[in-house]
Amino acid sequence: MVTPMSSSAADVVTSFIAACERLDLDAAIDHMSADVEYWNVPMEKVYGHDGVRGVLEPFLGPFEEIEWPVSHMVAEGTAESGTVFTERVDRFRAGDVWLELPVAGMFLVRGGKITVWRDYFDLNGFMGEMGKLSAS
Amino acid sequence: MVTPMSSSAADVVTSFIAACERLDLDAAIDHMSADVEYWNVPMEKVYGHDGVRGVLEPFLGPFEEIEWPVSHMVAEGTAESGTVFTERVDRFRAGDVWLELPVAGMFLVRGGKITVWRDYFDLNGFMGEMGKLSAS
Repeated sequence: MVTPMSSSAADVVTSFIAACERLDLDAAIDHMSADVEYWNVPMEKVYGHDGVRGVLEPFLGPFEEIEWPVSHMVAEGTAESGTVFTERVDRFRAGDVWLELPVAGMFLVRGGKITVWRDYFDLNGFMGEMGKLSAS
Repeated sequence: MVTPMSSSAADVVTSFIAACERLDLDAAIDHMSADVEYWNVPMEKVYGHDGVRGVLEPFLGPFEEIEWPVSHMVAEGTAESGTVFTERVDRFRAGDVWLELPVAGMFLVRGGKITVWRDYFDLNGFMGEMGKLSAS
């Protein structure tokens, strides 16, 4: 991805979320700097493209379709240097079952890439949703 | 609290957090509209001043000191109508023990008051921190 220098920080995050929704892991990771910090806050921090892939691949892999609708986004700055918050209900479909995860995410964007991504959510809530899969 | 109409939405939230840090529950609640929605996302939503008091009182009560340092805040709009996100590590002291809770919060501000407050965090992580109290 080449981010035009006129882009906003919000554009970078919106494009990243769209890549995740296409289940296009390579495109998603291409939105991130080589030294990106990614923290699913209930879990361990990971760093770099391989670290992100190690978390996102098993997170997205079981699902046929995902939607991350953004209920609120507030951003400041450009793709060169900015900060973006999103409030979302991430939705994951396996077969006929949709799982839902309410989440608030904070992104720092530098030089057209995401350098920090921290998603805040309740891990037990998500594990409860995962239980729908074995129950179905 | 009287919020000057020239205030930003961020001013309202900053003043609210300061009231919480003073452990001044009445002042904190005075920042909220009568029909406020307050959701600690792993828990049940509550509404109105009594609902907020019912959640915040036991949350703040056990502690002698709290600090909610904001690592990132991005806001748009005025005290009349705005949206504010905060990323914080809320800290709670009982005796010599500090508990820490990483949290991302989203606030809607209307007419000088907070009308929606949603805090996203991992409940198990906080319960683990609470365990420090009985261990000390």
